[in-house]
Formats: sequence, structure tokens, C-alpha cells
Amino acid sequence: MPEQAADIDAIRELRALLQEGEEEALRIFLRLIRPEDIADWLDHLSQEERQRLLAALDHDAAGTVLDDTTPSIRAELVEEMEPERLARIAETMPLDEAADLIGELEDEEGEAVLQHIGDEDGEVLRDLLEYDEDTAGGIMNPEVVALPADATVDDAIRVLRTSDENTVTAAVYVVDPDNRLQGIVRLRRLVTAPPDARLGQIMTTDVIAVPVESDQEDVADVVEKYDFLAVPVIDSEGRLLGAVTVDDIIDVIEEEATEDIYKMAGSSAEEEESESLLHIARYRLPWLLICLGGTQLSTSVMGFYSGRVPMYEQVSIFTPAIMAMGGNTSLQSSTTTVRQLALDNLPRKHYLVHVLREIGVALIMGVVCGIVEAGIAYLFHGNPIIGAAVGIAMALGMSAASLLGAAMPIALTLLGIDPAVASGPLVSTINDSLGLAIYFTTATVIMLHFA
Amino acid sequence: MPEQAADIDAIRELRALLQEGEEEALRIFLRLIRPEDIADWLDHLSQEERQRLLAALDHDAAGTVLDDTTPSIRAELVEEMEPERLARIAETMPLDEAADLIGELEDEEGEAVLQHIGDEDGEVLRDLLEYDEDTAGGIMNPEVVALPADATVDDAIRVLRTSDENTVTAAVYVVDPDNRLQGIVRLRRLVTAPPDARLGQIMTTDVIAVPVESDQEDVADVVEKYDFLAVPVIDSEGRLLGAVTVDDIIDVIEEEATEDIYKMAGSSAEEEESESLLHIARYRLPWLLICLGGTQLSTSVMGFYSGRVPMYEQVSIFTPAIMAMGGNTSLQSSTTTVRQLALDNLPRKHYLVHVLREIGVALIMGVVCGIVEAGIAYLFHGNPIIGAAVGIAMALGMSAASLLGAAMPIALTLLGIDPAVASGPLVSTINDSLGLAIYFTTATVIMLHFA
Repeated sequence: MPEQAADIDAIRELRALLQEGEEEALRIFLRLIRPEDIADWLDHLSQEERQRLLAALDHDAAGTVLDDTTPSIRAELVEEMEPERLARIAETMPLDEAADLIGELEDEEGEAVLQHIGDEDGEVLRDLLEYDEDTAGGIMNPEVVALPADATVDDAIRVLRTSDENTVTAAVYVVDPDNRLQGIVRLRRLVTAPPDARLGQIMTTDVIAVPVESDQEDVADVVEKYDFLAVPVIDSEGRLLGAVTVDDIIDVIEEEATEDIYKMAGSSAEEEESESLLHIARYRLPWLLICLGGTQLSTSVMGFYSGRVPMYEQVSIFTPAIMAMGGNTSLQSSTTTVRQLALDNLPRKHYLVHVLREIGVALIMGVVCGIVEAGIAYLFHGNPIIGAAVGIAMALGMSAASLLGAAMPIALTLLGIDPAVASGPLVSTINDSLGLAIYFTTATVIMLHFA
Repeated sequence: MPEQAADIDAIRELRALLQEGEEEALRIFLRLIRPEDIADWLDHLSQEERQRLLAALDHDAAGTVLDDTTPSIRAELVEEMEPERLARIAETMPLDEAADLIGELEDEEGEAVLQHIGDEDGEVLRDLLEYDEDTAGGIMNPEVVALPADATVDDAIRVLRTSDENTVTAAVYVVDPDNRLQGIVRLRRLVTAPPDARLGQIMTTDVIAVPVESDQEDVADVVEKYDFLAVPVIDSEGRLLGAVTVDDIIDVIEEEATEDIYKMAGSSAEEEESESLLHIARYRLPWLLICLGGTQLSTSVMGFYSGRVPMYEQVSIFTPAIMAMGGNTSLQSSTTTVRQLALDNLPRKHYLVHVLREIGVALIMGVVCGIVEAGIAYLFHGNPIIGAAVGIAMALGMSAASLLGAAMPIALTLLGIDPAVASGPLVSTINDSLGLAIYFTTATVIMLHFA
């Protein structure tokens, strides 16, 4: 959301306070503002102002600001901070967020922060840091309320009342003496049950839990499918380790959509975390080099026909249009296909129908575009034969491009390769050669017959 | 998530039961399966099997299945259903989902269903159907618990206990006698407060609510930013109308990501709801025709140089490579830029730095690709002069392409136009002409000086 006018006024006031150095007034001002809003405003401040602002925040607010700001600003702020202050801030955060914060530090700095955190939390954090950050273990909050089946509703409410504010409260989990998950009592059920009821009587035993090593995307699918507020995480023995909450799932969904979008362009979201141009280039270059290899095919096609097609000079001026229209058509088909596959909207038995439909759509559009382009070629470049060749080749080329754009992601899926990578550079490169070959062949055939 | 082996067995068993027509066995089987799973399996069944399956489900399960399945299967199932059965199913659904279901029907059918729904719910549904489906009003659930400030915690729990299972329970809302929102008591606070406490004493008065006409994307931003489970929706007088829950927000986020991805390719997610090829073509064709217009520029550039560049025939064979590499580079830059803008990660004051960084990255990659391509051109096509021209033009063209790819979305944002549309076809078409002009000019200059 773009900043509102009210925000802009508040930011101006904040900057004035930061520059005047009136600490007391600054503290009072900051207590009136939500930390989430402060996180949004950091962009508008200079590096020095940001440092001064963070120093004036209490640990809790600083934790929210650090969690909500962009990775690059977080890195910049954290670098200037004492390990002890960072430890105090981390202690106010949910443990999964604290682990993310510490995980972003250099090993040595992370260790220094952990030294300042109490033994109990410190140990849990060390455990959390062991999990791959893209798994259920990497995004779960280990602070859950786990009780035996013979505990009462009243017991559960008492535990909730004294629990840390970062505890998962969407549900209370019922476990056996070995901490194995037996059932779930959602908060709503807890509220409406009689205080002396046993959890074992009111729990849902038809529990859906995710293994700690599950891919975060699969965890997101579960939460999304069943409209959960939290899903418990278990180890291979069925022991409760924590829960993944829906706010983390929202982040996963955004992250995965971004990842898909980037992959489709032969790029990577990870590069954004880097400040170095060389580093970003290293991410993107492999795709471009593969494409460069692919373009040798187009060069060969051009080289082959340049000596053979009659009137090559006039024919060749339409090659950019042929390639561009094929490229755009295949982009439409591949984008649709990749996204439908990603959303699980395209079951295996519909693959063939889907490809045929895409070709059908492209044929309709190809005929329209072909007729328009043939007219333009005839009117402005004065040659009806070349005009006809351009028009026919455009319709054929667009259909072929859409076949490639729709079929390639499906083929990659069947091979177990992520289809998002197929959508961008790769398909477009193959398309160019195909479109050129179709065009020059059509032109040659037509000219030999009619010219 | 792809279907698991266990699912495939269950689907096989389900199909057998559907074909045998043993209704009792079918009902027992279906009661053991979660409706969300049944929704996922519908793809694997024939149209007739789906109809028979839906007829065997109770209203509640049928509602979940209809809500979770794809739009095309939902449309197909609903078409065969009696208005009365649909009304019974709709009554089991949260009112926002029921409104979506009825909203998808033809006006006449929708009216027939509403006739069969009780007066009270029917009126609420008619109101909900008035809101634009992309606004807070279109996705809110009007069934919330609203109580006066002098009600006690015990009163609130009693209301929750007797409330419909579709009621929003993330929080209890405190309203004045005119139904104006005064405060919020989250469920967790309610659980842990003394039973005789007044809601007015324990409520949060620092309420964030969204206006009923807000864009759903803005509502999603609020829920995401503050990690809410639900956000109240108010009218222009501050009166409480309902709440948007986090499960609906997840759908919004997925929908908007899909919309962005489609737009980047000059397509639309709405087309997916259509069965007609002509209809889909009508969505995509405008973009292609704009591109076709744009390609006239490339044609003119080719036409202009074809008579002027020395050794045009040999020079021209590298044009596809020049265009493809420029296109891919600009796709990387524009994708990164569009996504960063969409995620609000790119503040206005960083625009210039961002564009310069993108150009810097492209220049590094362009030099690498240019050297490789110059070597290939020399080795395989035997001309060092053309090789040098290709190499230099590729490096320059890729940098120019990245400038265009990064700057165009930013320019459109500044003009108040959605940048996602700039990323795909439009930029690539302009790129082609630019890349060709750079290449032919470089080739001409080099050949005139060195050949």
C-alpha cells in the first residue's frame, strides 16, 4: 500500500524529532505509533536516523520492526548493534522469528547473541537453527500449549493465562506422557466447553499434523486447504515439536509466488538479498548463457536460408515481427500453464486437452494477426507474395509457439523438473528458430510457386 | 501437492463404489473422508461420477466440496442441481462463501436459490451480493459477535457457545447502541480474562478496521502486516458490518499473485473461467495486436538498414541472437522490478539506484555474453569484423534492454498504471527495435572504419 498523507506527516515529524535529539519527546512519540508502521517508514530515513530510531525503541517494538523491515535494512541495523541488545530483542520475539534473525547473522555474531540468551531459550534456538529454513521445522513456533488428556478445560485456561505472549494459542495440544500428539482442542472449543470437562473428552482426534522436515510449501497447502489457524509439527515418532501459524504461512505463499515469478524470468529471489552486482549477475548469467547457446540455432537457420531464399533482403525484414509474435504467444501459453500447474488446477488427465486448447486459441489469434500483418506488408512494403508468406507464417508460427509454450512446462513436470524455469528464456529461444524456419520455408515455397 | 499413493487407492475405491451404486456403502465411505480431500479428487472422476458423488454427500460436506473445487467443476455441478438443494447447501456455508456461490449463478437461478433460503439469511445474502467481489464487502463474513461494552466475559462466552459454526470467532467486537465499532476483544484475551470482567474494561480501543469498499488487496496488506486472524469491516459511519478472516486473505494473496503473473504475459486469470476458445482469444488478442503494431518499428529498422549496411546478408544472421539476448535481459530486469514494486520493497527514493544497479548487472552479463558471442561469430562464421560488431552490440543492447526493463515499470507506477502489464509483450517489442538499431549502427561504424 502506498503511504497515506497522514503517514507522510508523521514521518516528517519523526525525522524532526530524530534530528533535534530530544530523546524524551521521541520516546513519547514512538509509543503512539505501531511498530509495524515504523517498520514501513524506515525506507524514508537516512541510515543514521534509522540507527537512532532503533536505539530509542524498547526491545519489544524493536523486535517487531526488525522482523517486518526489508532484509537489507535489517542487516544494516543489526550490524551496528551490540550482541546483548540483540539478545534482549530476540527474547521478545516468537522463537521462530528470533531464530530467523540470529540465522541471518555471521556464525560468530550469532554465537555471541546466543551467549546472552537464557539457557532454556538458547537451547531451543540452537535446535531451531538446525532445521532447513524452507521446512516446517524452519518456520514452526516451538512454544505451544501441550497437556495430558486428563487435564481439564480450566487447567488449559490457567496455562494459557500464564503463557508467554508469543505462545501459539490457536489450539491446545493433547499429548501422551512421551509427548506424542493425541488430539487437538481448538481455542473456540475451549472457550465454549464446561470448565471441568477433560481435554480428552472434547479433543478432535482426527489430527492433521505435518512432519518437521516437510517442505514449507506443502505445509502452506495443508493450512490453506483446511483453513487452519495453525498446524502442529511432529517428529518421526509422532512427538509434538511445535506449530506453524497462519501468519507464517502467508509469508510462505508470498515467497513462493515471488520465487515462481522470478524463475519464469531466469532469475532468483535470493539475489535480492545481495548488495553485490557481481553476485546478482552470477545468479542470472547461467540462464543467459544457456539462451546464448540456444540462439546459435537461430543464427544457423538465418545462415542457412540467407543463401537460399529468393529476395532474402526483403524477406528478412519481417523476421523480427515473426519472432516477436511467436515469443509473445508462447509466453501467454507457458504462463497460463505454469501457473495452473503451480496451483494444482491442471490434473494429469487434462494435459492433452489443455495443450490442444492453447493451440486452438493461438490459431484464432494467429489468423487475425496474420491477416493484419499480411495487409501491412503488402500496403507498406509493396509485395503481395511476401505479404502472403508473412501472414501464413505468422499464423503457423504462433500456433507452434503456443504448442511449445504449453507442452514444455507439462513435459518438465512429467520429468519431475520445476516447470517455472521452462517458461521464460528457454522456450523463447527455441521458438525463435522454429518461427524463422517456418517463415523462410513458407516464403520459399510461395515464391517458387507464385512468383 | 501431488496426490499421495494412499489417495490414489482411496479414489479407486470411491470410483468402484460410485459405479456399483451401493448407496449405503458409499455414504459410509464418504463420512470417513474429509470434504476437502473429496474436492481434490473430483478431477479424477467422470462428470457422471461427480454428480452421483455430490448427491450422496450431506449438505455441509457438499458445501465444502463446492467451495474448494475448481470454478469449472463447480459450475458444472451446480448447473445440474435443484435450487432447493443448492439453498440447503448454501445455508451450511459461511455467508460470504454462500454469496460467492450464488453470485456465480445466472441471475434467474440465483433468485430461485434465494427464494428457498430463510428471510433473514436471504436478506443478508442479497446485501452481500451488492458489493463488488474484489472489495472488503465482497469477502467479509457478516456473522460476527458484537456486544455492548457493559457485557461481561461470561455473556460473550455464552453468545459464542450458541453461535452458528460459521461465525467469526477470532474476536468479539464491542459496539455502541448504533452498532459503531468501539473496541475488540481477541479470543485469547476472552479466555484468560475473569468471567465477570466487562468487555469495555478489557477491550483494545486502538482498533484497526477496513472500510467496506476497500480493495481486497489493501485488506490483505493490513492482515499481513499486523498478523491478524480477522479484521473488522465498517461502513462510512463506523458501523460494524462484518469481518474478513485470514483464510479469505490467503485466497486473495494467491489470486493477486496469479493476476500479476498473468498480466506480465499479457493475459488474464479471468480467461481461465471461460470454456470458449474465442473468449480466451479475445482476452489475449489486444496485447498481441499492440505488439504487432510495435513490431512495425522493428520491420522499419530492418528495412532501413537492409539497403545500407555493408554485407547485410552476413550481418543479418545474428539479429535473432541480438534480439533474444536483449529480450531475456529485459525480462529479468522487469520481472525483478515489477515484483519488488508489488511487494512494496522498492521505495520511491530508491528508484534511480535500482535502475542503475540493473544496468550495472546487465553490463557485466553483456560483456561476458558479448565476448562469448564474438568468439562464436568469428570461429563459426569466419568474420572477425562482424564478430566484434556482434559482441559489442550485444553488450550495449543488453544494457539498454535492462534500462528499459527496469525503468518502464517504474515509469508506469509513477503514472498510476499497474506496472505488471509493462513487463511482458510491451517492453520486449520496444527492445527488439532498439537492439536492432544498436547492432546495425555498430556494425556499420565498425565496418566503415576497419574493413
